[in-house]
Amino acid sequence: MPEISLRRARSIIRKTLEAGRERDLKPLSVVVLDTGGHVKAFEREDGAAPGRFAIAEGKAYGAVMLGMSGTAQMQRAEAQAYFMAAVNGAYQGKVIPVPGGVLVRDAKGAIVGAVGVTGDTSDNDLAAAIAGIEGTGLTADG
Amino acid sequence: MPEISLRRARSIIRKTLEAGRERDLKPLSVVVLDTGGHVKAFEREDGAAPGRFAIAEGKAYGAVMLGMSGTAQMQRAEAQAYFMAAVNGAYQGKVIPVPGGVLVRDAKGAIVGAVGVTGDTSDNDLAAAIAGIEGTGLTADG
Amino acid sequence: MPEISLRRARSIIRKTLEAGRERDLKPLSVVVLDTGGHVKAFEREDGAAPGRFAIAEGKAYGAVMLGMSGTAQMQRAEAQAYFMAAVNGAYQGKVIPVPGGVLVRDAKGAIVGAVGVTGDTSDNDLAAAIAGIEGTGLTADG
Amino acid sequence: MPEISLRRARSIIRKTLEAGRERDLKPLSVVVLDTGGHVKAFEREDGAAPGRFAIAEGKAYGAVMLGMSGTAQMQRAEAQAYFMAAVNGAYQGKVIPVPGGVLVRDAKGAIVGAVGVTGDTSDNDLAAAIAGIEGTGLTADG
Repeated sequence: MPEISLRRARSIIRKTLEAGRERDLKPLSVVVLDTGGHVKAFEREDGAAPGRFAIAEGKAYGAVMLGMSGTAQMQRAEAQAYFMAAVNGAYQGKVIPVPGGVLVRDAKGAIVGAVGVTGDTSDNDLAAAIAGIEGTGLTADG
Repeated sequence: MPEISLRRARSIIRKTLEAGRERDLKPLSVVVLDTGGHVKAFEREDGAAPGRFAIAEGKAYGAVMLGMSGTAQMQRAEAQAYFMAAVNGAYQGKVIPVPGGVLVRDAKGAIVGAVGVTGDTSDNDLAAAIAGIEGTGLTADG
Repeated sequence: MPEISLRRARSIIRKTLEAGRERDLKPLSVVVLDTGGHVKAFEREDGAAPGRFAIAEGKAYGAVMLGMSGTAQMQRAEAQAYFMAAVNGAYQGKVIPVPGGVLVRDAKGAIVGAVGVTGDTSDNDLAAAIAGIEGTGLTADG
Repeated sequence: MPEISLRRARSIIRKTLEAGRERDLKPLSVVVLDTGGHVKAFEREDGAAPGRFAIAEGKAYGAVMLGMSGTAQMQRAEAQAYFMAAVNGAYQGKVIPVPGGVLVRDAKGAIVGAVGVTGDTSDNDLAAAIAGIEGTGLTADG
């Protein structure tokens, strides 16, 4: 399975934060996970609340573990709330099923990791994540 | 208490995966638990998301621990969400109350284990599980 | 990163169990994890105690998460017991630092997963795991 | 309370990784925590084992939560193992009491955060952390 490099993870984070500054969003926190759901890189902007790591990780973790974007998880949660609650139990409460958890795919469509962004509204978090991933030449599945 | 053999567990998994391929379903993951809710055998097809073990186990675990199929658990969750949430607390979050968790019974109707299938829609997961169990000469209670 | 296929995982399990039968070992349980520490396949032989999944998983999980075989983990635990205890806290108690947790490498030396075997003595578990991995044409790092 | 900025956290990580490359160490993982023990930034080099985030975090977390470097924690663990085990219980298993967890102080001696490094021997991890912190114009208390 292809795997995201640190160089690319770093690039995604920088471009996501730049997208946040251009859009005048609140301070963002951005995590990049590998295909096993393990942290590759993370940054939290000055002024962001201290607990943002767990929220960013939770958005990306659900995406990679279920193979399903945060937007798709939210739709499932809205249709069948107890199902996503139960999934979260099975994953020890690590899943945050809202937009901003984004699968990262390479040119062939293979999943190479996931990005989680938090700090502004979920929709703005998602827009920044997509800008960061696409700015690095990868495909965002948000 | 009758107990499912490894030979039969392996056969259920193979026939469930074959049923998935015949129906052109997404990559499936299949677990077989014994009557105590403990894992006997598991396989995750190539291309399935990494977190599928916990979902498959959660479907089968709820079935065997409550003596109630995933379909019956879902009906209970829809009628009385707080009840299934409370059950999940008691079981440390290990229950996934949707179709695809199936009790396995022998010719006399005794429970000999449970199967959990995940990867496609819950209804397709259930259909594959039933095909796998019945193809092995046992009775599916889904 | 290369990733172990279900076909190969299945082959490792079969050959490990065959090695156990040839050596007249007690009933074995064998898990294969992918490079993220997630379960790919598992089988527990008839007569093995019900809780063997967690032991097999714990041996393989420590190997893949730390990039260190069970034998190396045991040496570290014997030299510095509080360190492995602390590692286990960080991994929520999922690490079993004894022989029988084996890294699986491909022809280029890249880690493609890990195997965990339990049921007999740790040394016999390790011997069966090595036989299973090498019998499948992969390299065991035990 | 003074607080480490993202710009400085990023600089510490870069200089720690550079120090690792100069010394030809194994792939490193580096975390920077703030004065509340919360993640500010993290990077895991290519080739490092997937579970390294928890180890890096555990080294830095113990340092900041106890106000005591990893080296001092190790001495305490060797003198009184049950004490560090009890501390770890109180901190939910998040403390790794070995060298490589380093307090970061400003020019006035105030703690502004902590760094955790893992990947090579504990002593080499510590040397890289000190190089990274001092290279950024801050004081390392390792």
